[in-house]
Amino acid sequence: MVKRIVDILRNGQPEESVTVQGWVRTKRESKEFAFLEVNDGSSMANLQIVLNQDLPNYAEVIKQLNTGASVEIAGVLVPSLGKGQRIELKAQTVKVYGEADPESYPLQKKRHSFEFLRTIGHLRSRTNSFGAVFRIRNACSYAIHQFFQERGFLWIHTPIISASDCEGAGEMFTVTSLNLRNVPRTEAQEVDYSQDFFGRPAYLTVSGQLEAEVMAMAFSNVYTFGPTFRAENSNTSRHLAEFWMVEPEMAFCDLEGDMDLAEAFLKHIFKYVMETCHEDMEFFNQRIDNSVLATAENIINNQFERLTYTDAIALLEKTDQTFEYPVKWGLDLQSEHERYLAEEVFKKPVILTDYPTEIKAFYMRLNDDEKTVRAMDILAPKIGEIIGGSQREERLEVLQRRIEAQGLNPADYWWYLDLRRYGTVPHAGFGLGFERLVQFMTGMGNIRDVIPFPRAPLTVDF
Amino acid sequence: MVKRIVDILRNGQPEESVTVQGWVRTKRESKEFAFLEVNDGSSMANLQIVLNQDLPNYAEVIKQLNTGASVEIAGVLVPSLGKGQRIELKAQTVKVYGEADPESYPLQKKRHSFEFLRTIGHLRSRTNSFGAVFRIRNACSYAIHQFFQERGFLWIHTPIISASDCEGAGEMFTVTSLNLRNVPRTEAQEVDYSQDFFGRPAYLTVSGQLEAEVMAMAFSNVYTFGPTFRAENSNTSRHLAEFWMVEPEMAFCDLEGDMDLAEAFLKHIFKYVMETCHEDMEFFNQRIDNSVLATAENIINNQFERLTYTDAIALLEKTDQTFEYPVKWGLDLQSEHERYLAEEVFKKPVILTDYPTEIKAFYMRLNDDEKTVRAMDILAPKIGEIIGGSQREERLEVLQRRIEAQGLNPADYWWYLDLRRYGTVPHAGFGLGFERLVQFMTGMGNIRDVIPFPRAPLTVDF
Repeated sequence: MVKRIVDILRNGQPEESVTVQGWVRTKRESKEFAFLEVNDGSSMANLQIVLNQDLPNYAEVIKQLNTGASVEIAGVLVPSLGKGQRIELKAQTVKVYGEADPESYPLQKKRHSFEFLRTIGHLRSRTNSFGAVFRIRNACSYAIHQFFQERGFLWIHTPIISASDCEGAGEMFTVTSLNLRNVPRTEAQEVDYSQDFFGRPAYLTVSGQLEAEVMAMAFSNVYTFGPTFRAENSNTSRHLAEFWMVEPEMAFCDLEGDMDLAEAFLKHIFKYVMETCHEDMEFFNQRIDNSVLATAENIINNQFERLTYTDAIALLEKTDQTFEYPVKWGLDLQSEHERYLAEEVFKKPVILTDYPTEIKAFYMRLNDDEKTVRAMDILAPKIGEIIGGSQREERLEVLQRRIEAQGLNPADYWWYLDLRRYGTVPHAGFGLGFERLVQFMTGMGNIRDVIPFPRAPLTVDF
Repeated sequence: MVKRIVDILRNGQPEESVTVQGWVRTKRESKEFAFLEVNDGSSMANLQIVLNQDLPNYAEVIKQLNTGASVEIAGVLVPSLGKGQRIELKAQTVKVYGEADPESYPLQKKRHSFEFLRTIGHLRSRTNSFGAVFRIRNACSYAIHQFFQERGFLWIHTPIISASDCEGAGEMFTVTSLNLRNVPRTEAQEVDYSQDFFGRPAYLTVSGQLEAEVMAMAFSNVYTFGPTFRAENSNTSRHLAEFWMVEPEMAFCDLEGDMDLAEAFLKHIFKYVMETCHEDMEFFNQRIDNSVLATAENIINNQFERLTYTDAIALLEKTDQTFEYPVKWGLDLQSEHERYLAEEVFKKPVILTDYPTEIKAFYMRLNDDEKTVRAMDILAPKIGEIIGGSQREERLEVLQRRIEAQGLNPADYWWYLDLRRYGTVPHAGFGLGFERLVQFMTGMGNIRDVIPFPRAPLTVDF
């Protein structure tokens, strides 16, 4: 019976007959035996396989069984004498599906730099590091769905192609069916969008929030989980042109409820990953960042600290710590400030609230002081801001005023304003950058290494 | 304690104190009482609320409580004397968050056409029909994740922006950061892509399959579930420019395994929806299509019929039925043929296999007869093709030959071919058009009515 290696390693019993299918990681030959390490992607650990010379096709297959070759091996489980494994497979039949020429197959048994592995994005998932990253990425994804579905939230598929710019900011990619070699013109020499697919300019979305608000006004609790885009020309280890976002939106909810949900949400994801991918997490702790397990425990076990932006500024102004960027009420916090608060002052995640109106988006609810809005950011040790959210402005007149104050045209937001015209309610939500979460979880330094096929300036391979 | 209406209707007990938050659907006034129907999106059914004239703010709130107004009502549950409900809420306090002016609010108590509701996509989810559609859409989505996660498949996020065209067909949207008013040119008067974000032409993906194959070669079993795009100028009730697809990919799997998985997959989704959204399904059966419940039972309870394309053609040629389109070996089947097989001949889902090479994609595994490929389509009563899949060509030389035969350049597929160079294995997968599934499930006639914010020619609102 074909079994996944993860199941064999966990539950396989001596004398059990099993068949495994996977790829050879290493081969060692001794006088009478050969040992293979075979991996099928179901776990970090390989299954050790013992090939005896009296296998009928031993001479033939042993030449084919190089690193990367694909095999199906049937045999009997036996207790392992070697260290590091409880059980191994004594092969009775070996079938090689596909070889991997050791002269040209790039993944030979040695350490490769992440930079090099990015150039072979179609093969890098076959390494220990990327195997672990994408198993953890999957576990985070499913934990997110579980969390919301158990609470009665609906997953909403908000549109990727959009004619509006949610935040009134952010550089956007254009989506067009026009031929770039020959863009049609109107008599006034403008682009003739009447010939374009949508009849007007269209872009890749930067956020599903406004549409999520639409749906929250019908279903009370919803969330998005999908790709979003920035055409920002930032060739850094922190930016992607295409990345996944999670954006819950709750009707009849204020900022307190928003913070409660966000905290429970992060704890749930970390718990789920620690339970289902513990071996992968230990790998990262050993090889990549020896604080990831402690950080996970910190998130799971501590109540997040909550304080206002104003109090945080006062606190940062009092400290002896020197910062590269200035600290002053009204200025946005930099990563160094955020990390200082989370790592040095509170030594756990911190939720800052009530930011200055000027540095936050128009849709955030204005406080009575008119100087601050009901925004919140969750700052995590090691990474800084991981979640940003707010209570939304549900008052029609205030929202109109704030749209105008930002130089935007209220007419463009007619449908968003309608939500305040008809049955408006207090509501709130937040956004989680999914790749930032996976980085935070694994300690991986470059955001391009936590998404299967990264898109960035001049980078659109595979 | 705030409770969701779905939970109150299911489990609420007389004398229980509860608070509900939602939107008024209707109001009826009698001499001494007013009755409200309130909905919070958690279920099709409303909660009936009784307002007594001795409520302190009765005169004030009764004027505000029009259709669409948002409310928070606290009170005590009492057995209902009216028909159609077990329990109702006797209000003790009523708070109106937001009114909805009956003069301008478009969703008054009467039936609206789906055409009209499409023009108010930001409000239509507040109707019974769209409430039911999007609850079912969510249930299908979660059932899909559950199905694969329980079987150890990893959810893979394949890229949206792509430089390659998976199927060598399909019209694609261009993604660019260039200014369309002033597209830069090279000396040869070509588009100067060196100034574009990715340094070369980029498109919106038409399928994640090739990337899913990459990941299956590392993790054995994976699936995608995300948006895909077609720039086809089809202004019909069956086409969207942006739609969601599910694409599992399994290493060490042949077409038999592919069909087994696809059949189990469809059965699982229908079962899950029938269990979790039965009230919504009954609504569709009563109001939209009186066969949807029978169709769901048919899918769940019948073993799908399997036969070859060649046998299906023979069968269609023999029948007395007249068709609009010709039936002949080598031609693709039309919807009328597919439905005839599923509805008239077998009266259940049918899986056709081994289609002519010429009408299928280059990556499908060539049979020994060289005239057919190991493709399969699942044909469902009422809708025709719902799933299309194949065993993939894993033999390097055959794949190269087929790429060339289709006039494509093997150099563009270097990484896809590498999967056959290094540890190639038999593998298979399929694609499910997610909106087609939701249409099939609900009986909704227009595909634009099963996705929250449809994108189609000249349609990019909200």
